[in-house]
Amino acid sequence: MYKIMECVPNFSEGRDKQKIEKIVDCFRGRDNLKLLDYSNDEDHNRLVVTVVGEPYELIDAIVDAIGNAVDLIDMNVHKGQHPRMGAVDVVPFIPIKNITMDEAIDFSKIVGQTVAEKFDLPVYLYEKSASDLNRENLAVIRKGEFEGMEEKMKLPEWQPDYGPLEPHPTAGVVAIGARMPLVAYNVNLGTNNLEITTAIAKKVRHIGGGLHFCKAMAVSIENRNITQVSMNLTNFTLTAIYRAHELVRIEANRYGVAIVGAEIVGLVPMAALIDTAAYYLGLENFSMKQVLETRLME
Amino acid sequence: MYKIMECVPNFSEGRDKQKIEKIVDCFRGRDNLKLLDYSNDEDHNRLVVTVVGEPYELIDAIVDAIGNAVDLIDMNVHKGQHPRMGAVDVVPFIPIKNITMDEAIDFSKIVGQTVAEKFDLPVYLYEKSASDLNRENLAVIRKGEFEGMEEKMKLPEWQPDYGPLEPHPTAGVVAIGARMPLVAYNVNLGTNNLEITTAIAKKVRHIGGGLHFCKAMAVSIENRNITQVSMNLTNFTLTAIYRAHELVRIEANRYGVAIVGAEIVGLVPMAALIDTAAYYLGLENFSMKQVLETRLME
Repeated sequence: MYKIMECVPNFSEGRDKQKIEKIVDCFRGRDNLKLLDYSNDEDHNRLVVTVVGEPYELIDAIVDAIGNAVDLIDMNVHKGQHPRMGAVDVVPFIPIKNITMDEAIDFSKIVGQTVAEKFDLPVYLYEKSASDLNRENLAVIRKGEFEGMEEKMKLPEWQPDYGPLEPHPTAGVVAIGARMPLVAYNVNLGTNNLEITTAIAKKVRHIGGGLHFCKAMAVSIENRNITQVSMNLTNFTLTAIYRAHELVRIEANRYGVAIVGAEIVGLVPMAALIDTAAYYLGLENFSMKQVLETRLME
Repeated sequence: MYKIMECVPNFSEGRDKQKIEKIVDCFRGRDNLKLLDYSNDEDHNRLVVTVVGEPYELIDAIVDAIGNAVDLIDMNVHKGQHPRMGAVDVVPFIPIKNITMDEAIDFSKIVGQTVAEKFDLPVYLYEKSASDLNRENLAVIRKGEFEGMEEKMKLPEWQPDYGPLEPHPTAGVVAIGARMPLVAYNVNLGTNNLEITTAIAKKVRHIGGGLHFCKAMAVSIENRNITQVSMNLTNFTLTAIYRAHELVRIEANRYGVAIVGAEIVGLVPMAALIDTAAYYLGLENFSMKQVLETRLME
């Protein structure tokens, strides 16, 4: 029973190809580790890497990559559209196979302690690894960004979980933690009225009284003259894709608006879609053990 | 890019545990081979094994297993409810991963030639490997069963593809070939009227003017006082699960009968269910490459 963990680190470098490759190289040519994707955005000036593998090999690679990013990136001259607080902005660990959330939390803490000591980097544990309710939400930790972090860290409640009590002079701070796989799911609506779609998005999402593990916003798709409810499902095992889909349909009905399509952005775990198929077919007594690929990966 | 092939050999021994284990042992303890399932039915007096793995390792194992079955099983004393023509009745090869149907056909022919020479066993190539349209359907080859095979083989059109021109005295003949993965999919209907369900099954299946790769029959589920359209989808990439499901619904509508459940029997490829989810959600531009497990298995 081999364990597989995923990591999606975000680095604050989206323009300098040489620096990007030096960071990404840390994930290449390793046994039991697979670099699934990396993409840099020049406007955001940000690099997002997706890598999966055996947890200790993954830890080894991510510590190397954080070291390279601390060496290569100077946040004092960093500009980009995406909010950020450090050379390595955020490092989420996601349990994929034969690994519990508690284990993923433990691994995230090992990485936090290691990079704090090795690179003099203040570390905030976030999401499931958070030491405090106030630190679960990345946006709350990141508020003030790199430039405001020195002042913010003087507040006793913003002492880091590991590392020095002030930001690294060039690399700032980093958030590290474990979280569930996230499904980015968008539903297209047959209206160009963004007001209607915003009203629907607000009802479907958690803070508006909607589904627990659903974040949602409305987006215009101007070249198609339609709008979209753009969602992040942060725990697909409890807030299933089909439930979000049908709730959008129900709310759209009130406006006489129809669903005209949908999309999954990026990677999605097999179970999230198979669960959806099982719902629509009304499958009885179905087990993921019946899926050939589940057995092949055992 | 490692290749994975599946094999589901059927042996004519469902009662003698010792013989069963001797046959199944051929698939155990091998590198790159996984014994997924085996089940013996005493009424049918038949053993069905499901095994997946690297094609050459799989060939090696299946040749051993056929050898053991030829040694252990005497068809002259075999009795069972299931039609059969040999100690090894049928050996289907199913391409699973990084392997084309043409390659699976080639592998089935290697096995056919090998066991014909090694065990003096007449071999009929069937399904996609068939040398003649008349040999695609296993039931047509098997007609007459073990007891009738000697007479049947005297007909020039029933000369085997490999091996001797008369049946093996104790092991009869075997059908070997490549086919698509088969999805066993049943839809439960809220009626105990078998006549209605039979009428629906007939319309949905290929021979009744229904879906190309769909076989269907009606079954009573007496302990629940309902009936079932029991289907075999022999090519889920062309006749999708959702299409069979919705066609049953449409035909049932005419009788005012509702779908009250469904089931998948045995193993199902991930893609068959993901395709179904993609249909019901109306996913645009979705690729199997977005499924995490697809990437993990690359």
